[in-house]
Amino acid sequence: MSNEFAFIDWIRSQQRTEASVLLAAGDDLAIVKFDPNDLVLIGIDQILDGVHFNLNEHDPRLIGKKAMNRNLSDCAAMACLPVSAVVSFAIPRGMSVECMKEIYLGMKEAGEAFDCHIVGGDTGSWDQKLAISVAITGKSAGLTPVRRSGARVGDTIYVTGALGGSILGRHLIFTPRVREARDLVARHAIRSMIDLSDGLSRDLGHICRESGVGAVLDSGCIPIHDDARQRPGDVLLHALNDGEDHELCFTADAGIDSAIRIGKIVEEKGVWIDRSGVREKLITAGFEHHF
Amino acid sequence: MSNEFAFIDWIRSQQRTEASVLLAAGDDLAIVKFDPNDLVLIGIDQILDGVHFNLNEHDPRLIGKKAMNRNLSDCAAMACLPVSAVVSFAIPRGMSVECMKEIYLGMKEAGEAFDCHIVGGDTGSWDQKLAISVAITGKSAGLTPVRRSGARVGDTIYVTGALGGSILGRHLIFTPRVREARDLVARHAIRSMIDLSDGLSRDLGHICRESGVGAVLDSGCIPIHDDARQRPGDVLLHALNDGEDHELCFTADAGIDSAIRIGKIVEEKGVWIDRSGVREKLITAGFEHHF
Repeated sequence: MSNEFAFIDWIRSQQRTEASVLLAAGDDLAIVKFDPNDLVLIGIDQILDGVHFNLNEHDPRLIGKKAMNRNLSDCAAMACLPVSAVVSFAIPRGMSVECMKEIYLGMKEAGEAFDCHIVGGDTGSWDQKLAISVAITGKSAGLTPVRRSGARVGDTIYVTGALGGSILGRHLIFTPRVREARDLVARHAIRSMIDLSDGLSRDLGHICRESGVGAVLDSGCIPIHDDARQRPGDVLLHALNDGEDHELCFTADAGIDSAIRIGKIVEEKGVWIDRSGVREKLITAGFEHHF
Repeated sequence: MSNEFAFIDWIRSQQRTEASVLLAAGDDLAIVKFDPNDLVLIGIDQILDGVHFNLNEHDPRLIGKKAMNRNLSDCAAMACLPVSAVVSFAIPRGMSVECMKEIYLGMKEAGEAFDCHIVGGDTGSWDQKLAISVAITGKSAGLTPVRRSGARVGDTIYVTGALGGSILGRHLIFTPRVREARDLVARHAIRSMIDLSDGLSRDLGHICRESGVGAVLDSGCIPIHDDARQRPGDVLLHALNDGEDHELCFTADAGIDSAIRIGKIVEEKGVWIDRSGVREKLITAGFEHHF
């Protein structure tokens, strides 16, 4: 990178204290204040050039948005409110400061849309491709965090939107379902939840494994995104396996109108699909890596 | 990487809930409980193959220790207690699971030495070199965090140990000064503090800039590590500029016996060195990048 220190100074100018942020960038660590009743939720997620985005092809601001929104989507999956993020950039030598600023601004905009502020970070230059890690903290803010492990036999399985074909562009511009998750958990007994990053078949498999149960999907109920129809191959398999939809998948009693019912939690382990009365096990290896 | 999912399952087996960790790896986010009086401190730091370590040369367990200890050293610099860490690995395709396990165990051991637990993470494979990010959370635990911005004209400047030549190996095996920092702050009015990662001249420059003051170092008082004497060039310049010492530099009133007095905070901006009565400005550009 041509001027790493100029970039660091510029980043600092973009960060400021907020009600919950007592000290933002410029020290060894940031200081954040939580309400005494809050549980603190913590996670990290990275995006890598050539794996999750392509620096030569994609708008840098959207790359930044994706990096932040993946973490916000993890907050949604726990029904917590995002609070702050810290970011690390491994920057290819020779990369322009302007491009890095665009990426940063994309992250900042995505975060601030959910009142989540970047409070610190780390930059390093190397002769390899761009890697971006975002670590997020969230707060329970009056709602018990929803885990993957709470699904019970008989639960109805839901998703919050149509699936498949996100590689056509949606993986860069999805909206994390933070508000939907808060609303669902405030109004219903949501027993387990996850965000769909690796594809419905694999992510629902995580819920099943953590909860010690199985799942049967109703093939006629899976909401298929128009993007999936533009991809070669079986559209249902795209909806089940493509990944990076970042919709929520959750289990609860029947009768929730604000999400789409796609199946049932059952006792028999594994993730199954029912096609017109014929039940077959889903092979989750179909995860479509981007690029 | 040959078997990323086996590595992820193994990582999970290494993580468990603790008194302060309500939910460790295996969900979208980890859940950590803080005392109602705690401030929460947050930061992130990365190490990159070819920049901060050399995968072909260094013991993988020490690489892991370094990744964690750099973050623990940031906690020391604020006088907070480390609580939990989340880690991201960008893993070269073809890297062995055994080597990654060694790195992880190094991180885990380094963290647990200070009661800091790895509670989550993210792995990705790519065709580039290894990048490791660690994001840490700490707690104030009864002591007000010490910032870089509190130095006052007339303060005495101290360091906690000898400096220079860490590239000979100390950069991989230093002990973060968490306990020393807590002890100092519990017993004395420490006004500003930083850990020496980029070298005394540069890091003391951060304190000066944040505090709006200057610093004069006494050339005869700078503690020079034996490692610095084994490097070509001026040993004093190695002690001032090499970096990755991870000792603490702090300012306070005179009279602290448990650290080494190296200079004074002055009104005139900049970092200066006094050599037998002749004061010259330190050029901080001498930072010695590793590898």
